Amino acid sequence: MQTYLECFPCFLSQALRAARIATDDPEKVKQVLDEVGMMLKDIPLTSTPPESGQRVYQRISAITGNKDPYKAIKAENTRKALSLYPELKARVETSQDRLLTAIRIAIAGNVIDFGPGKAFDLKMSVEEVLTQDFAVNDYPAFKACLHGAREILYIGDNAGESVFDRILIEELQKPVQYAVRGTPVINDVTFEDAVQAGIDEVATIISSGTDAPGAILGTCSPEFRAVNGRSSLIISKGQGNYEALSHTRGPVFFLLKAKCRVIAKDMGIEDGDIVLKQAQRAMERTLK
Amino acid sequence: MQTYLECFPCFLSQALRAARIATDDPEKVKQVLDEVGMMLKDIPLTSTPPESGQRVYQRISAITGNKDPYKAIKAENTRKALSLYPELKARVETSQDRLLTAIRIAIAGNVIDFGPGKAFDLKMSVEEVLTQDFAVNDYPAFKACLHGAREILYIGDNAGESVFDRILIEELQKPVQYAVRGTPVINDVTFEDAVQAGIDEVATIISSGTDAPGAILGTCSPEFRAVNGRSSLIISKGQGNYEALSHTRGPVFFLLKAKCRVIAKDMGIEDGDIVLKQAQRAMERTLK
Repeated sequence: MQTYLECFPCFLSQALRAARIATDDPEKVKQVLDEVGMMLKDIPLTSTPPESGQRVYQRISAITGNKDPYKAIKAENTRKALSLYPELKARVETSQDRLLTAIRIAIAGNVIDFGPGKAFDLKMSVEEVLTQDFAVNDYPAFKACLHGAREILYIGDNAGESVFDRILIEELQKPVQYAVRGTPVINDVTFEDAVQAGIDEVATIISSGTDAPGAILGTCSPEFRAVNGRSSLIISKGQGNYEALSHTRGPVFFLLKAKCRVIAKDMGIEDGDIVLKQAQRAMERTLK
Repeated sequence: MQTYLECFPCFLSQALRAARIATDDPEKVKQVLDEVGMMLKDIPLTSTPPESGQRVYQRISAITGNKDPYKAIKAENTRKALSLYPELKARVETSQDRLLTAIRIAIAGNVIDFGPGKAFDLKMSVEEVLTQDFAVNDYPAFKACLHGAREILYIGDNAGESVFDRILIEELQKPVQYAVRGTPVINDVTFEDAVQAGIDEVATIISSGTDAPGAILGTCSPEFRAVNGRSSLIISKGQGNYEALSHTRGPVFFLLKAKCRVIAKDMGIEDGDIVLKQAQRAMERTLK
């Protein structure tokens, strides 16, 4: 996905939010705003938002000296999400379509996102998403793809959300590799966060190798790209991964809740909508 | 009022909004974002927001070649406000306290502000503000000051809002000089807008001489400063004028509805609150 004009004020808002969490020194926060302001002219509209985010958050770390401002917030969100796990599991157990309910729960967890800076309530999000209409629902295609899949790549998004992902992974009934960011960025899930969420009990955790807030393949490790290339089903979770992979072809399904108008516009949906959207298939590419 | 850290992303959001209204050329809009981003480092926290806004909006005009992007929007808002005039006037006629009702109506019109970028509904604003509790209410002091006043300076804020100001001016029963901006900036009221609102029928319209979105005295004309210095009651309308004059002493009363968290924090109130707040009196300065 390209960077839109609306993304530029958002980069500055994100920088302010992250800098204030990273440091108590207002002069350093002002320095972050000054330097991120200067960077904007070097961000072309053709880059993806996570590429720009990568540079912005690297700058915040360099100025504040804090490599993981969201560390405590991430741990707390995972703890809160774990406290909901039994209840979420019961929802699946008692549902008519376990897989679809687990997909909805995984999407509900996607509200734990400190990029867009929206307030959220986990319990309310679950109640909402369990009954919300999908703006895009490629569930039949997803089920068919899952049926034929030998191994699944699940690209995680945020810490805490991984607990919700675990619910879905447990319903997939296939070997899953769960990809985390290589380095902390915003509140995105890292190896440590995924282990805290118990993902290691249900999947193999692998690193994408990137420090961007989205799996931009060019910034990922060769090992991750190899897994990405051979997986017969790829679940791409959240906005950052959609922004990075929206032009990718292949067996990719995007699961997310839209949390800003820009991504909603790009997907042809409304802010707040939920989607299970299949990427354009490889076949379609050859036909064009 | 000082510039707060939160103001910096807001400057960029305002620049985007104004640039898009000023031009259809996305490259020029991107250039505005780039150049305003570069300006941020030169804006100290000690400057007032209208001083910074002045520089930002001057830059937008220079890049887009559009000196008055909000011209059509301003005329339309004045037209809409004028259509409400008879109804607003009837509210005053049937109220128990005409002056206080007129003050509330003048505050209700303060929602017509394209700086903070909040959506508004004029009729709803009137209904809300007519019954809303004041967060600060210096009405007794205002009445006493009005009683002894020989001439009143009323510093206008936005186009359209002037129609609401006219309702209040008609209840003041004293000679009023109504100050407008010297040059178009955002949707702030200029001479032409004030005439469209019928202010010339109830007051003498004078120019503050500034092109800042707030009456920063240092940027105003000597003529305006002379009127400001000798007026025995000054009504300062809206956020921009509060931001410019908050540290002023003298017979100044701020009438506004808070439309951002920053100004609310500065005034010790909540976003959305309404105030009729007397400035610190000249006497208090000498006692300190």
